[in-house]
Amino acid sequence: MKPSPRCISRRWSTRCKNAGVSVFSKVLPDGEVYKSVTSLSSVWDACMEARLDRKSTLLALGGGVIGDITGFAAATFVRGVGFIQVPTTLLAVVDSAVGGKTGVNHPHGKNMIGAFYQPKAVLVDAQVLATLDDRQLAAGIAEVIKYGIIRDWEFFEWCEANVEKMVNRDPAALRYAMVKSCEFKADVVAEDEREGGVRAILNLGHTFGHAIEASKGYGMWLHGEAVAAGMVMACLMSEKMGLIGPDITRRVEVVLAKASLPTKPPPSVTLQQFMTYISIDKKVESGKLRLVLLRKPGEAYVTGDFDEEILFDTIMHFHQLYKESPGTYEHSLGNLTL
Amino acid sequence: MKPSPRCISRRWSTRCKNAGVSVFSKVLPDGEVYKSVTSLSSVWDACMEARLDRKSTLLALGGGVIGDITGFAAATFVRGVGFIQVPTTLLAVVDSAVGGKTGVNHPHGKNMIGAFYQPKAVLVDAQVLATLDDRQLAAGIAEVIKYGIIRDWEFFEWCEANVEKMVNRDPAALRYAMVKSCEFKADVVAEDEREGGVRAILNLGHTFGHAIEASKGYGMWLHGEAVAAGMVMACLMSEKMGLIGPDITRRVEVVLAKASLPTKPPPSVTLQQFMTYISIDKKVESGKLRLVLLRKPGEAYVTGDFDEEILFDTIMHFHQLYKESPGTYEHSLGNLTL
Repeated sequence: MKPSPRCISRRWSTRCKNAGVSVFSKVLPDGEVYKSVTSLSSVWDACMEARLDRKSTLLALGGGVIGDITGFAAATFVRGVGFIQVPTTLLAVVDSAVGGKTGVNHPHGKNMIGAFYQPKAVLVDAQVLATLDDRQLAAGIAEVIKYGIIRDWEFFEWCEANVEKMVNRDPAALRYAMVKSCEFKADVVAEDEREGGVRAILNLGHTFGHAIEASKGYGMWLHGEAVAAGMVMACLMSEKMGLIGPDITRRVEVVLAKASLPTKPPPSVTLQQFMTYISIDKKVESGKLRLVLLRKPGEAYVTGDFDEEILFDTIMHFHQLYKESPGTYEHSLGNLTL
Repeated sequence: MKPSPRCISRRWSTRCKNAGVSVFSKVLPDGEVYKSVTSLSSVWDACMEARLDRKSTLLALGGGVIGDITGFAAATFVRGVGFIQVPTTLLAVVDSAVGGKTGVNHPHGKNMIGAFYQPKAVLVDAQVLATLDDRQLAAGIAEVIKYGIIRDWEFFEWCEANVEKMVNRDPAALRYAMVKSCEFKADVVAEDEREGGVRAILNLGHTFGHAIEASKGYGMWLHGEAVAAGMVMACLMSEKMGLIGPDITRRVEVVLAKASLPTKPPPSVTLQQFMTYISIDKKVESGKLRLVLLRKPGEAYVTGDFDEEILFDTIMHFHQLYKESPGTYEHSLGNLTL
């Protein structure tokens, strides 16, 4: 069926001509729950409807979900078209927009379908961060803090000293945090694009975090929130393995809490759920679970060499906490239902 | 939800352990009509269900449709796993298994969704060709002949002399045809993997062929059959442009007819349908239609520089034929309904 221009304009919100370039826009619903094959298909349909071709470019204007879906659509429409990232959340700026990971979730696992596809450019306008609500901003700050924990303890200490400034949207502090984070990310990706080695340290807290997100059905917790709780779990596990002192875990908890980020998994996620989702996580290789842990403050590493008992202990630690002091958790995520 | 082993074995036909390797099989329905996002999703689901990981390998055992879907699933499951092609049709051996084009169809256009993803190995067992029916075999012979037309006129003349042997499944003739074809394909792809230039000559007859397939709703014509008719159209257009003599078009028609391949588009496909599908075809770049034509026998080229009138004339030539001698067409595809 030949789509008529009318048919396109009804379903596409904008169509304009600037400098000889035709621009079509396709609005996607927001949120991790929409990072699905269904949304992806709707982008493919839109590309067909607009009759895009190999010389076309997809531009992702939005947060990480939009960037990931659009990037994967760009990687796969007519086997690859141009792609530009214009991230509008702090999380997307400091994490997903740089590095070329694109994809969607499978109902049984996060980011299971995707491709490595580098954007031709990443354009950041710090002004758009003003449109973020506090929760979205904090979710980005979680990833900023992550770079300090995994790569540069001095930067972590800068975060400790400046977390309130970031939370209060101090432009200089946010700009410095963004520049440093993009540099950390780009360095790691340049070393190891396809995550054969060092890139995996960027996933500190992600295995635990994905399990939290998946158990809650994606979308209730923001990705950065789940990663924040996951990072505390990874620190606690490193601590239980004797790699770092309890003071380090405590400092990580404190700085995250100052950004109003969760520092514990939700009590409703059971050990069984954790183990199921962790074992599906794609960092399981050839049946062996690998985790990102801390060798020392500011230096993360990836390992499959750990005692499973310590993993159970780490998860159970929080359940024990809830049992001892029920109700201690709810404040940290504001009005979020657990 | 954690899939149980029972759940896997119910939906997967085989599960065995050889040399420490777990093998799962997923049977896909056959035919171009199933080269869809739905089939692709079912492979992703199967990969999840079998808990494949980044170290897993997908092995495509089947024709071109199976190879293309499986290759795309391999390119995109956990952002890329290993991939091996085991083509079981002549067409897949000489065409799709080599070169790394993977993907599925969109309801409005063939191969619109996909990726370039090279197999780690292509394993050919000439014995499996014995299982092909005559139509499938002929569809492969069309692509064998194509290599002569576009790249090596001497090989075309070998095809003229040996087409009956190929049709009669002479093992030596088929083996020679397969080896030569894979060599031609590999040479062209090595020069230009992503089809920025010379690789496009492999699409001789494909723009017309895709229009035929799409108009007939995919699956009624085999891909090789549509390409055969498309190649005659491309030759006729080259002839009308004064690039080759009418004797060349005639020789192409004759050798294809000897393989019981169609040498004309079906009368039911209108000029309007041709133009619609041709303009959606992904060889349209930045709104400019590009076609593969013959500069001389044994040498194809890609061009956007042609008179659209000649394109119309080429399509209308066949409609004129049908008007003059209705019923002349039906014999060439046996019992295929037009």
